[in-house]
Amino acid sequence: MQLSKRLAAELFGTFWLVLGGCGSAVLAANFAGPVHGLGIGFVGVSFAFGLTVLTMAYAIGHISGCHLNPAVSVGLTVAGRFPARDLVPYIVAQVVGAVLGALVLSLIATGKPGFDLVASGFASNGYGDRSPGHYSLMAAFVCEVVMTAVFLFVILGSTDKRAPAGFAPIAIGLCLTLIHLISIPVTNTSVNPARSTGPALFVGGAAVDQLWLFWVAPILGAVIAGFLYPAIAENRATGNSRAALAD
Amino acid sequence: MQLSKRLAAELFGTFWLVLGGCGSAVLAANFAGPVHGLGIGFVGVSFAFGLTVLTMAYAIGHISGCHLNPAVSVGLTVAGRFPARDLVPYIVAQVVGAVLGALVLSLIATGKPGFDLVASGFASNGYGDRSPGHYSLMAAFVCEVVMTAVFLFVILGSTDKRAPAGFAPIAIGLCLTLIHLISIPVTNTSVNPARSTGPALFVGGAAVDQLWLFWVAPILGAVIAGFLYPAIAENRATGNSRAALAD
Amino acid sequence: MQLSKRLAAELFGTFWLVLGGCGSAVLAANFAGPVHGLGIGFVGVSFAFGLTVLTMAYAIGHISGCHLNPAVSVGLTVAGRFPARDLVPYIVAQVVGAVLGALVLSLIATGKPGFDLVASGFASNGYGDRSPGHYSLMAAFVCEVVMTAVFLFVILGSTDKRAPAGFAPIAIGLCLTLIHLISIPVTNTSVNPARSTGPALFVGGAAVDQLWLFWVAPILGAVIAGFLYPAIAENRATGNSRAALAD
Amino acid sequence: MQLSKRLAAELFGTFWLVLGGCGSAVLAANFAGPVHGLGIGFVGVSFAFGLTVLTMAYAIGHISGCHLNPAVSVGLTVAGRFPARDLVPYIVAQVVGAVLGALVLSLIATGKPGFDLVASGFASNGYGDRSPGHYSLMAAFVCEVVMTAVFLFVILGSTDKRAPAGFAPIAIGLCLTLIHLISIPVTNTSVNPARSTGPALFVGGAAVDQLWLFWVAPILGAVIAGFLYPAIAENRATGNSRAALAD
Repeated sequence: MQLSKRLAAELFGTFWLVLGGCGSAVLAANFAGPVHGLGIGFVGVSFAFGLTVLTMAYAIGHISGCHLNPAVSVGLTVAGRFPARDLVPYIVAQVVGAVLGALVLSLIATGKPGFDLVASGFASNGYGDRSPGHYSLMAAFVCEVVMTAVFLFVILGSTDKRAPAGFAPIAIGLCLTLIHLISIPVTNTSVNPARSTGPALFVGGAAVDQLWLFWVAPILGAVIAGFLYPAIAENRATGNSRAALAD
Repeated sequence: MQLSKRLAAELFGTFWLVLGGCGSAVLAANFAGPVHGLGIGFVGVSFAFGLTVLTMAYAIGHISGCHLNPAVSVGLTVAGRFPARDLVPYIVAQVVGAVLGALVLSLIATGKPGFDLVASGFASNGYGDRSPGHYSLMAAFVCEVVMTAVFLFVILGSTDKRAPAGFAPIAIGLCLTLIHLISIPVTNTSVNPARSTGPALFVGGAAVDQLWLFWVAPILGAVIAGFLYPAIAENRATGNSRAALAD
Repeated sequence: MQLSKRLAAELFGTFWLVLGGCGSAVLAANFAGPVHGLGIGFVGVSFAFGLTVLTMAYAIGHISGCHLNPAVSVGLTVAGRFPARDLVPYIVAQVVGAVLGALVLSLIATGKPGFDLVASGFASNGYGDRSPGHYSLMAAFVCEVVMTAVFLFVILGSTDKRAPAGFAPIAIGLCLTLIHLISIPVTNTSVNPARSTGPALFVGGAAVDQLWLFWVAPILGAVIAGFLYPAIAENRATGNSRAALAD
Repeated sequence: MQLSKRLAAELFGTFWLVLGGCGSAVLAANFAGPVHGLGIGFVGVSFAFGLTVLTMAYAIGHISGCHLNPAVSVGLTVAGRFPARDLVPYIVAQVVGAVLGALVLSLIATGKPGFDLVASGFASNGYGDRSPGHYSLMAAFVCEVVMTAVFLFVILGSTDKRAPAGFAPIAIGLCLTLIHLISIPVTNTSVNPARSTGPALFVGGAAVDQLWLFWVAPILGAVIAGFLYPAIAENRATGNSRAALAD
């Protein structure tokens, strides 16, 4: 595929990740009901984020590889699965898609009487007093590094040519669901610098001040996994995990 | 397959989509319990809608293509995957199935003492004061257009001959689950004019007055995706996404 | 496979269906928590029932076909997919497995101080004043007939040789999840005479008096689907849906 | 693969099982919200445990077989699917991974102001007054034996060469989800001695005193299944279920 079409796919996919994942949190998590809460809570938000990746991986995996995440592109590059020359264009497309996803979400969310985008947090990520459970900077940093490292490890393993063909979108999408089931209380869950950047630009202030962590920690985790998976998985002679390179 | 059998499959499948999806909302969403709410809430309704499509796609995908939705049939036609001559018969079968699904649901739901079908809303779609979260007409319109566009994009991508075979029902069904996790508070989620029509005819009044939006917006979104996916996905020479045409 | 091994598989699988599905309801649905309810509610019970079938279908599908349900065995017989001479032995094995599942569940459940098996209902099915939402006999009957008919239709369709191979356990298991998401409030959901019989024998009284409906309605629904699916799905000449016969 | 790489995979996978499964329970189960509880409850914890196995089975199944559990390694050995000479190294790697998972979880969890690791229970398993629902030692023992037996039965069946290829991680992962949906109230669900050991070492006291049950009962259940599955599944002549031996 031409690079332009792969970038369009990444942009559209990351648009969906932010609109769907953050949208479920902003629009549906807290909804009240006549008898008990009808809102989807952290369980629903966790499935929503994971399903944005599962659905797009089947829809555009054959076009762009469906990274939707700068940390994923970096980790795949470190592991030798993605060409370094495409790294910057992919990241730019992902961030633009994330900002557009947040923009469309803002159009919908502000259609509710009394909705205050900044006060709502708009599904932005944070640590300390901006963490849902007021977790410290150090806990947030450890959490984002480790969660992203495992995420990349699962991506690298499930797309290994020795793994069953066709199932990687299920493993990867549900891994993102799992990561959210664990870590929404800690940082609102990033593991994806583009996903963090989109909503933060609309909230501004402290959300932007804390954005550095959600670039540094996920990319650090991805780099670790980019070295770890090949070290565990590859037989010295054959290097047989390099088959899934999408280009 | 003969057209008559394909229409019977579409009718039966859309019957199930409305009975199962709207049924879960009407019968089970709000159920109380001795200790805490036992009802399934928006998470359960979201899975129910998605699973109606997942189950039917495996059951009748090989018969009719399992559209169950006029917007899907329109989007597939625009993308060159479905013959225009079958469009009107498919849409008629889908609407008849949806009305029958609402009819059977009404037989069950009214078996509960004190159930008031009209006051319950009967899982009909709406905007403004008929939106679960009182979202404006404009927010509802944007939401339905965008959600349906992504839905069709995922349908077109996951049934592309380059995508892994056999997984499309999972991607498509869980995409409908995801769309509900995001947008039930906005419009009660349509993305499907037939699904909107069935319950609205039983509720009448304002539910019918607002029905136009749930035909116009989903079909507009589907048309957009019908142009967008081929523009991103197809190499100029080969036109390789046209293989999934069901006929 | 020898009949004795197929019957052992059916017995063990139906044991798991009742222990897992009814067990989740009896042990976990209502659990309280320090901040909010931690219990799994109807969503969790719905997934539990469906996952008993999904897991067993992958574990014993190649041994016995994994019916776990007299209505399924009857429906497959009507559709010409199962030999009538094995019908009675299968049903006996399923009922024995269901009773053993309820027995083991009673051993665990009564280990909780103050647990009253009869007062709890023990996940038995019912209508009228024994329906969770007090639905009438007629609503319960319609619901069980229609739900079982669609269940068999999905079983027949997803195991059709034209459907993607290997995915039927996902479609069938999640169809049972979907059916529970809709109909637990109506009858506590049966669609399976063996599943109804196990707990009812331990509760006694009215639970046994109402047991007839949960044999008659599911089997009637299964018979309807046993005629309906072939009528819609089969080309006159080839009769191509008869390939999945397990024997 | 060399044994050292298979052990590294088992260590990392069991690290993820404890960090993800216990992490979801410790960090997210009880979370409050402005309108209703946002925490994931037992449903979310059940999915988290299952998804740790599903994701790792696709990521490392081709490296180590992805046991992540001493009871699984024992059961596979009894059934003739795993070489006895590798049993002790696998179990050591699993326990080390579990302890490291609990260690990283403690680093994150203690980043929340006021978090008391011991008072929280830290997702340790227990019976009697340490059971979430105060279930007796006997109920806990029966529950762990039976749940682990079915778990191993599903593992042996879904990896049988006659079962559909590639789907076993879905069946096995979701079986662990199902087991949690049933039995969290009874023992907080173990079915895995390594998973029990990790958190217990951090809690100390009674958690360690009760640890014996969560080694004895799961291994007993696994041994039962290691004999039961071949007895039901194998034709005398061919012994055709021994194909999945990972080495």
